Amino acid sequence: MAQKTTLKEFESVWPKLEEALLEQARGYKLPARELEWYKKSLETNPLGGKCNRGMSVPDSVSLLLGKSLSEEEYFQAATLGWLTELLQAFFLVSDDIMDSSITRRGQPCWYRQDGVGMIAINDAFMLEAAIYTLLKKYFRSHPRYVDLIELFHEVTFQTEMGQLCDLLTAPEDVVNLDNFSLEKYSFIVIYKTAYYSFYLPVALALYQLNIATPKNLKQAEDILIPLGEYFQVQDDYLDNFGLPEHIGKIGTDIMDNKCSWLVNQALKIVTPEQRTILEENYGRKDKDKEAVIKKLYDDLNLEQRYKDYEEKVVGDIRAKIAQIDESEGLKKEVFEAFLGKIYKRSK
Amino acid sequence: MAQKTTLKEFESVWPKLEEALLEQARGYKLPARELEWYKKSLETNPLGGKCNRGMSVPDSVSLLLGKSLSEEEYFQAATLGWLTELLQAFFLVSDDIMDSSITRRGQPCWYRQDGVGMIAINDAFMLEAAIYTLLKKYFRSHPRYVDLIELFHEVTFQTEMGQLCDLLTAPEDVVNLDNFSLEKYSFIVIYKTAYYSFYLPVALALYQLNIATPKNLKQAEDILIPLGEYFQVQDDYLDNFGLPEHIGKIGTDIMDNKCSWLVNQALKIVTPEQRTILEENYGRKDKDKEAVIKKLYDDLNLEQRYKDYEEKVVGDIRAKIAQIDESEGLKKEVFEAFLGKIYKRSK
Repeated sequence: MAQKTTLKEFESVWPKLEEALLEQARGYKLPARELEWYKKSLETNPLGGKCNRGMSVPDSVSLLLGKSLSEEEYFQAATLGWLTELLQAFFLVSDDIMDSSITRRGQPCWYRQDGVGMIAINDAFMLEAAIYTLLKKYFRSHPRYVDLIELFHEVTFQTEMGQLCDLLTAPEDVVNLDNFSLEKYSFIVIYKTAYYSFYLPVALALYQLNIATPKNLKQAEDILIPLGEYFQVQDDYLDNFGLPEHIGKIGTDIMDNKCSWLVNQALKIVTPEQRTILEENYGRKDKDKEAVIKKLYDDLNLEQRYKDYEEKVVGDIRAKIAQIDESEGLKKEVFEAFLGKIYKRSK
Repeated sequence: MAQKTTLKEFESVWPKLEEALLEQARGYKLPARELEWYKKSLETNPLGGKCNRGMSVPDSVSLLLGKSLSEEEYFQAATLGWLTELLQAFFLVSDDIMDSSITRRGQPCWYRQDGVGMIAINDAFMLEAAIYTLLKKYFRSHPRYVDLIELFHEVTFQTEMGQLCDLLTAPEDVVNLDNFSLEKYSFIVIYKTAYYSFYLPVALALYQLNIATPKNLKQAEDILIPLGEYFQVQDDYLDNFGLPEHIGKIGTDIMDNKCSWLVNQALKIVTPEQRTILEENYGRKDKDKEAVIKKLYDDLNLEQRYKDYEEKVVGDIRAKIAQIDESEGLKKEVFEAFLGKIYKRSK
């Protein structure tokens, strides 16, 4: 029977990967101070998160095999999982600079830590490079090695397109609601989040087991991209309607001028008078203006609108899962596990 | 007989590559405004330079074949050349942010252009991603496709290690000459510049022709890395001793606290009194202090010291070129062409 990994088990693999990366740098005779710097970056940036993306690789591999994993199988799957965490670390370090963020995982963002500053850009690059170093070290003789590299290249580029669209559509300092639309919203969410957070881990699991047939990849994509979109819509919903004690933070999407699902829904149904209220109060660093928007969201019944959306999209996803063709080794359970973690979550 | 490419001929290939990149983005349904943004980045950042690195790929291929290239051979070689230019564009866009640079190729740096700012970080990522998109499009069926990808990964990481060392050793705002040493200098120069500027283009030419045997790659590296180091030493020399009307700029290495060959040579031979002069005047944005350092360099006879270095290193390189084993298809002319362009240059 399949077995779910724990954060502790997953994290226990990292030191070996970190050591492989440091060993490579030592092989190049990187001087001592720079080596220490790289080590600190490797011990700060990929760690401290929930590792949901990373852990979903061994979980998926276990579900696909229908058994708990051997030590070797687990190490391979967890390594691929850590590569998704490295990809995320590369994005987070650089996104935090681009978004002028203050904290990340309860600590100052890396670029705001003592003496780091813009060197963080180069540190982000080195986190990205680590993906390919580890792929080469542990997967060079895997029959799908080239596809694994190309998958990371493609997903990286997809995420960068999503980030570009987000940056141009919702700059923190210029409010222009004409930029927003549900089409733009979908593009941002799918490219910036869904590919690397949902499709990538399952595709990696399929490649590891050498069952990444075109059909299996296509079926996975057709379910995981809508699922990832739903996950982000839910995130946007919780930012406003969730309980701070559940989500662990106080939502700031309204004040931050985010191209959120809520504002896009509002834009679709507002009267001209309500549109003026949105124009005058959205995206301002002002608690009173934020309260005006929150009131408008209530008047527009966005909470119910979200719940209707959730039932509809979860129904569609369930129907797609039911129709999965398992003849090439794909398993419905992989997707049921993802959906189970997400549906009606409150944090 | 081999034929040298011209900038015009080399540049004529770019529009086709740019169109392939835009076509890919359109395939992902990147919205119109973001597509325009990407296009502008692709038409600004890789262009406008001298393309010495890029053009050295077709030049090397032509020398290796001992003939002028067919249209197909030229297109392949120029494409690989453009990938080195894309790699350089990725580095320059991000280095300019990290170094707070003002201008690049006679224009404001990309991050300083209207409305760009920190979005430039993501643009740099997309320039890097373009390398692998084009490799996949034009070289996926090449017998050395995997090695081409791995070469770009490795050289990228090498350059990032060099950049890290440079950033930590010579920050613009904190002068600490204890950080400097000729060993550090060599590391920075070799990793930050020599691999991608000298080794990469020749390695690409060898791969294109499928004569990148371990022996040929090793011989190329053993000559091109010292040659690249010499090139950078010369650059540092010209920054102080070159004529502004030749080098096209007024050198600012002293005021910028650069870990230059000159200051490292000075540190090696100064008296304690001269060391104090260095400590008190190097790396300050002050023309008078710069003049004190320039005077010290003259007192220390660094110009002659450079000339002695140049004769010694060029002699060593010539000796290595003479000993090249051409039995696996490598040609001495490839290296003679590089050396000819560099030796005793004044700009």
